[in-house]
Amino acid sequence: MFTGLSAFPLTPMQDDAVDEAAFACLVERLAASDVDSIAVLGSTGSYAYLSPGERRRVVQLAAANTGSKPLIVGVGALRTSEVLANVRAAEDSGAAGILLAPVSYQALTDGDVYGLFRDVTDATDLPVIIYDNPGTTHFTFSTELYGQIAALPGIASIKIPPVTAAAAAGRVSAVRAVIPDHVTIGISGDAAAADGLNAGCDAWYSAVAGTLPEPALAILRAAREGRPHDAAAESARLAPLWELFAEHGSLRVIAAVAEHLGFAPRNCLPRPLRGLDAEDRRRVAGVVDALGFTAG
Amino acid sequence: MFTGLSAFPLTPMQDDAVDEAAFACLVERLAASDVDSIAVLGSTGSYAYLSPGERRRVVQLAAANTGSKPLIVGVGALRTSEVLANVRAAEDSGAAGILLAPVSYQALTDGDVYGLFRDVTDATDLPVIIYDNPGTTHFTFSTELYGQIAALPGIASIKIPPVTAAAAAGRVSAVRAVIPDHVTIGISGDAAAADGLNAGCDAWYSAVAGTLPEPALAILRAAREGRPHDAAAESARLAPLWELFAEHGSLRVIAAVAEHLGFAPRNCLPRPLRGLDAEDRRRVAGVVDALGFTAG
Repeated sequence: MFTGLSAFPLTPMQDDAVDEAAFACLVERLAASDVDSIAVLGSTGSYAYLSPGERRRVVQLAAANTGSKPLIVGVGALRTSEVLANVRAAEDSGAAGILLAPVSYQALTDGDVYGLFRDVTDATDLPVIIYDNPGTTHFTFSTELYGQIAALPGIASIKIPPVTAAAAAGRVSAVRAVIPDHVTIGISGDAAAADGLNAGCDAWYSAVAGTLPEPALAILRAAREGRPHDAAAESARLAPLWELFAEHGSLRVIAAVAEHLGFAPRNCLPRPLRGLDAEDRRRVAGVVDALGFTAG
Repeated sequence: MFTGLSAFPLTPMQDDAVDEAAFACLVERLAASDVDSIAVLGSTGSYAYLSPGERRRVVQLAAANTGSKPLIVGVGALRTSEVLANVRAAEDSGAAGILLAPVSYQALTDGDVYGLFRDVTDATDLPVIIYDNPGTTHFTFSTELYGQIAALPGIASIKIPPVTAAAAAGRVSAVRAVIPDHVTIGISGDAAAADGLNAGCDAWYSAVAGTLPEPALAILRAAREGRPHDAAAESARLAPLWELFAEHGSLRVIAAVAEHLGFAPRNCLPRPLRGLDAEDRRRVAGVVDALGFTAG
């Protein structure tokens, strides 16, 4: 389950409430695609902005629409007790796994983060993905800490941050050396996915695949089938999208893509996050159309 | 109101709930001291970790115990609608002002942050302090953005991050040049307070004063009475405390101080934050005792 392509849908908002119909539709499309799992309430799913009640409802909606795909649920929150409440909501909805980022306000120590993962793995039998996203959590995992946490019972995978092509193989080997065999490594940062997969990552935790599964699947299939150059070429074809991601962050760009294709209402991000301005929206629309992405 | 010493009490926790008696006692002590205002639910008050209901209750408790001191309430949250709910709770309890930090998960743009302050100042008549705390929010205000936000009706003060002694006067002048006359500048980062006050800051937004108002008042009085060397000397006397702050962050150290002096129960921080380990607690206790701080 913690291999292949895991797709992270948006949680579109309208008038400060989850747009349940739009969210259910995004999940249904993923359920009908060839992605390997559906991961709701990731960073792309705005988990950090939603109340515990909204999150519980989103998980229920997702569970009702994932079909036979494994459902993975982001449970991170600033406070451990809120994380544990999110874990219970995931369990109650039949989630297959959970994704846990060490969300921070005060800087976290290694001891805090180890303690958080221990408290969560003690509290659930659901497999846990270590969600390493330093750009949003501002916590930097050492390779040693990966090893310590990965040794906890229940840890199933690590979602590692983007790596450069040159560093990818070394990074994957270094992580693999400190974690048990059953723990998979998943790349994140969509622009780095082809390099990560070609370097031996088991999974791709993908923001873009939550809205546009097909181009992501083309990269995944090429890498899996031993065609690394094809994976790199398909990723290179998407360079105009990756450039927008680098400039604005993937969330704002994917939100604009979804809005352009009619998958989400206008201004679908939770305030204070504002969508792209009119000029950048036109750029996004141009890239989407040039790359041949459609709502079909 | 947005001048002088503003004291930021802890919100002590016990068994994952606010220790209401300990919190009320901290506020009562401040009400009986010479501090100029009491600012609850700042970073030192763990605002980011508390639920909207807990925050409302903390504000009510504070209002019942501040006596005649102005009550300032931290209202920051990741989502604008939650900020606005916190603003209403502050209004309902008779707060005199609010403190707003641009808390982030996704990186915020200048437009997001300006929009947040505009939404809040549109929604309340309470005076607003711009809470610039890049160490926790990971948002960096430009001086230009200070000017744009300070021009909004209702902005009363800016809580600026620590400055070095050498840079303090220039920084205060640069900020003063872009903000209206009625907007005060308050220094934060207790180790930098003497330098900030000596450089002309109007206020000191102080973590240490929330638990230990007397040594902070000694610094403030010296600076106010035109005795800059005395202010610097008193701050230098507290250097062992500032060294602990630099090493562990002020929150964990102040929590250990409060626990040592009996103002807070053991392990009073919200999980996943863990308090200092036994050796560091002994160091804190040694510093507290050597500096002559008591619970009296």
